[in-house]
Amino acid sequence: MELLTINNVWMMICTALVFIMHLGFSTLEIGLARSKNTINILFKNVCIITGGLLLYALAGFNLMYPGDFNGFFGFAGFGLEAPIKDGALDLAYNEGYTYWTDFLFQGMFAATAATIVSGAVAERAKLETFLVFSVVLVGLVYPIAGSWHWGGGFLAEMGFYDFAGSTLVHSVGGWAALVYIAFLGPRIGKYGGDKPLEGHSIPMAAIGVFLLWLGWFGFNGGSVLSAEPGATSYTLVTTCLAAATGAVVAIITSKITSGSLDVTMALNGILAGLVGITASADSVSITASIIIGAVSGVLVVLGVLLMDKLKLDDPVGAVPVHLMNGIWGTLAVGIFREGSSVGTQLIGILSYGAFVVAISVVLVLILKATMGLRVSPKEEVEGLDIHEHKMSAYPDLLDD
Amino acid sequence: MELLTINNVWMMICTALVFIMHLGFSTLEIGLARSKNTINILFKNVCIITGGLLLYALAGFNLMYPGDFNGFFGFAGFGLEAPIKDGALDLAYNEGYTYWTDFLFQGMFAATAATIVSGAVAERAKLETFLVFSVVLVGLVYPIAGSWHWGGGFLAEMGFYDFAGSTLVHSVGGWAALVYIAFLGPRIGKYGGDKPLEGHSIPMAAIGVFLLWLGWFGFNGGSVLSAEPGATSYTLVTTCLAAATGAVVAIITSKITSGSLDVTMALNGILAGLVGITASADSVSITASIIIGAVSGVLVVLGVLLMDKLKLDDPVGAVPVHLMNGIWGTLAVGIFREGSSVGTQLIGILSYGAFVVAISVVLVLILKATMGLRVSPKEEVEGLDIHEHKMSAYPDLLDD
Amino acid sequence: MELLTINNVWMMICTALVFIMHLGFSTLEIGLARSKNTINILFKNVCIITGGLLLYALAGFNLMYPGDFNGFFGFAGFGLEAPIKDGALDLAYNEGYTYWTDFLFQGMFAATAATIVSGAVAERAKLETFLVFSVVLVGLVYPIAGSWHWGGGFLAEMGFYDFAGSTLVHSVGGWAALVYIAFLGPRIGKYGGDKPLEGHSIPMAAIGVFLLWLGWFGFNGGSVLSAEPGATSYTLVTTCLAAATGAVVAIITSKITSGSLDVTMALNGILAGLVGITASADSVSITASIIIGAVSGVLVVLGVLLMDKLKLDDPVGAVPVHLMNGIWGTLAVGIFREGSSVGTQLIGILSYGAFVVAISVVLVLILKATMGLRVSPKEEVEGLDIHEHKMSAYPDLLDD
Repeated sequence: MELLTINNVWMMICTALVFIMHLGFSTLEIGLARSKNTINILFKNVCIITGGLLLYALAGFNLMYPGDFNGFFGFAGFGLEAPIKDGALDLAYNEGYTYWTDFLFQGMFAATAATIVSGAVAERAKLETFLVFSVVLVGLVYPIAGSWHWGGGFLAEMGFYDFAGSTLVHSVGGWAALVYIAFLGPRIGKYGGDKPLEGHSIPMAAIGVFLLWLGWFGFNGGSVLSAEPGATSYTLVTTCLAAATGAVVAIITSKITSGSLDVTMALNGILAGLVGITASADSVSITASIIIGAVSGVLVVLGVLLMDKLKLDDPVGAVPVHLMNGIWGTLAVGIFREGSSVGTQLIGILSYGAFVVAISVVLVLILKATMGLRVSPKEEVEGLDIHEHKMSAYPDLLDD
Repeated sequence: MELLTINNVWMMICTALVFIMHLGFSTLEIGLARSKNTINILFKNVCIITGGLLLYALAGFNLMYPGDFNGFFGFAGFGLEAPIKDGALDLAYNEGYTYWTDFLFQGMFAATAATIVSGAVAERAKLETFLVFSVVLVGLVYPIAGSWHWGGGFLAEMGFYDFAGSTLVHSVGGWAALVYIAFLGPRIGKYGGDKPLEGHSIPMAAIGVFLLWLGWFGFNGGSVLSAEPGATSYTLVTTCLAAATGAVVAIITSKITSGSLDVTMALNGILAGLVGITASADSVSITASIIIGAVSGVLVVLGVLLMDKLKLDDPVGAVPVHLMNGIWGTLAVGIFREGSSVGTQLIGILSYGAFVVAISVVLVLILKATMGLRVSPKEEVEGLDIHEHKMSAYPDLLDD
Repeated sequence: MELLTINNVWMMICTALVFIMHLGFSTLEIGLARSKNTINILFKNVCIITGGLLLYALAGFNLMYPGDFNGFFGFAGFGLEAPIKDGALDLAYNEGYTYWTDFLFQGMFAATAATIVSGAVAERAKLETFLVFSVVLVGLVYPIAGSWHWGGGFLAEMGFYDFAGSTLVHSVGGWAALVYIAFLGPRIGKYGGDKPLEGHSIPMAAIGVFLLWLGWFGFNGGSVLSAEPGATSYTLVTTCLAAATGAVVAIITSKITSGSLDVTMALNGILAGLVGITASADSVSITASIIIGAVSGVLVVLGVLLMDKLKLDDPVGAVPVHLMNGIWGTLAVGIFREGSSVGTQLIGILSYGAFVVAISVVLVLILKATMGLRVSPKEEVEGLDIHEHKMSAYPDLLDD
């Protein structure tokens, strides 16, 4: 009983920390977008965490953890149904947390995948279309895919390993983002314009990254699923060292490639290191965590350059951060973790990639044909805030 | 001993989370006010949390928890006096927390009531007058009223129930705000001006609401007064579901009433849901928590419209969020909670309303006659920051 | 085992709270500097927390806690080496936390000293030079000096007492800052210019101070080194009361000295109170904590005036906040703490002062002769962001 109480306290704190990542994503995205689209981004992020949590309560949780199932798809029914014993909550559910903590912790995770897409399609995607896409992603794609590993499905049985979601969360969001932006096209002026499209508030972006790092204490620390002192504290150390190394190496790499000391690359390096270590934070050596972070730091800088070469416009760098480093982190499990193999990890990566890409392509094509993916050029140039929301984010500062 | 240690850790974390609500209120209020009054709002909020905590240490704590008393008014003496046994802190004080945690958790709550008023009177209230009002509110009104229920007074004995303060905290602040703005009058240009008075930074407002939601993990989660795993985690789930539902329903409602996708209404919907569920978060069903949040989401949108119809100028929507939903949440206890009755809840609501309104009216009339409630029209038009503080919040951004 | 688990949960939370102080320092510093140097400050702060953590893992931790040593200098070897027993982490390391929690908590502390310097030298210091200085400060000076007391060195044996680092953290950073700015000289236009140099975003500064106060829950609360309920909760109360008193007294003092209600002084008063109580938060009376905070509130206001009289340009007030109140807080231990003496406290203060000043002077002279301390006047006037980083913090808001 006391052990459950301790464990549950830790898990509730981790839940709060993952919750605050949604604020981190919000300020990161608005900071890296232009001021005229700020309200639109905030609106999307509010919809994702609120609607996402309700969807997860309605169906997601029971799709992701269906109990006994065929390993590919199972559903335990709509709504939440707590285990009851003698008229009270059955605390024997798990020694690490109660049923309710389990739901809320997982629910805070779920919306993350859609948030990743949100940043990538910022500044030109039609709001309603994006919301429909998100509903399918959070309500169906993410939990079904999640069930394959964390729900005890076929990848769990094969020995695939992804500790806290380099693939299950970050790559899933990253694949969906990649498909979406490929069909959506770049922002007007992004390629061939007079001057680069820049974010409007680097301090907001920095606040976002620090809050995301803070949230990762819960994202990875909570993925231990108990407060076991050795495992949780070790996980926090590998997590923080990978983040730190990611930043330092991204600074050096971008200094080499661009010649300047780029703070957005430093910030992206932190996120890249965090995404990279997420698959293995509990089970690789300290040295390995630093190597993983270092590779992430290189990858994210080259990834941003690659995206621009391919003319795939991703205002916040979601694909380099979440997809490329999600893949790298999952592969790194095969390299550095005892008992894991690169082959099995690859099967997992490809399974998730194929599933998410296939569904996303079909879905985006349907949405394109029906609702339309993009706002009008006029709306895009004048800003989504005024058109879709009839508001400005800084009426006073910009007009007076 | 171990159980006390766990419980106390949880309660200290909740205390920290309630503390950070003061930052949330601060950024919400400045975001929804014009930039020329930013310093003034920050100054008020710093005074409230610092002065409020000292007042609560000096007298509030012992007014709110007077021990055995007549049920209406009691006072256990000035200052803090910890229970000592054998020369050390007596840990038998409570199995959920120590004396010191108890004081600090309650102290962080106390200042909240004044903060609610602060937002409502923003942009035209005289600073010194408001501070005097706040001293009386935090130092006397809030703790005396609190003692009636949480201190074991007459409402506790009648079976009135308010889990974490829909009435004791939010309505108390809301009633005081309503009285204050009724006598204060609207801002110049609010009614009949050329263009609407808009907040100057929606991102700041969004940061505020996310921090308030985070803080509510501690506000409601800590109101369990221990880390009991079932009760705490269940409380967090109902709290988050009501917040999520409040946002979604407020978005739909405001889309219907105004035709646009209003992010400030989405944010207010989150707060409305949180205030609504606060009275019953531990003891209503999941379905009820969603219904409570949904009603809150409608109420807050209609409440803002109603205030404008009545020409009651409330820049941050404090009355719709805290008073209207505080009342709704307290009534909802009678509807959805086993063993509670709408009648008893109504008696509680009316008792608090009558007491706070009566004292506020008297106090505001005295202050109006002596110190004056409003700044001069010149000061108001040019901004309180320059006049009362000789500073600008963004000297550089606004002047260069 | 259960007790270790609880304690370790508390210590991990405190680690996360100290981590978020780095965001607090970042937004405080950018808020109090001009917008044209924002990127530069953020870049420095990202380097400090990431590079600092890696340095502390590489050498700092084993310099600060060398085990048995001569009391002045010891080194337990490069890298982290966890105690292993029977192939697993030896949990008998400490009943308050695991080896990994210990490292991470101390690592989050370590970078703080450099951050203090960062604020003081803002807006004119050459980035690379500052980073070299920081490497020596975080990698050598701070941990060696720290070993004298917390590592069990000669000051520990003399009975010197500094609970959570008024001297070991704050004065160390403060002395280094004082030396650096003495050689660096003031910003162009600071003395004798047409108008005062003002910070560009007071809301950012306010966010910073609230986050720092939040972080201090972990800074002081975690310095108990376990979750012992009486000690941790008492520490939080003295910490918060000193912060509150510092603010209230700084408001009154600055009202007297300058005639206006200065919100930056209110914010600095909070920090001053926090720094002041840090040496004794666990072991002085409530009354003493309020007196300590009150003196801090006076000191910080007078300190800012004194710095200006001496033409020592310190844009964020780092020396008044961290050095002057660090010294005051350490002396206050001798006055208010049973068993401590002012004499021994003075010896400690002077030992740290002499060591940090001596090394800083030598280091700054070498750096001045080799790399140069300041950017060119052209760079300073046009802003470090454009020159060193080829970016602007608010491209959109400032240019459109």
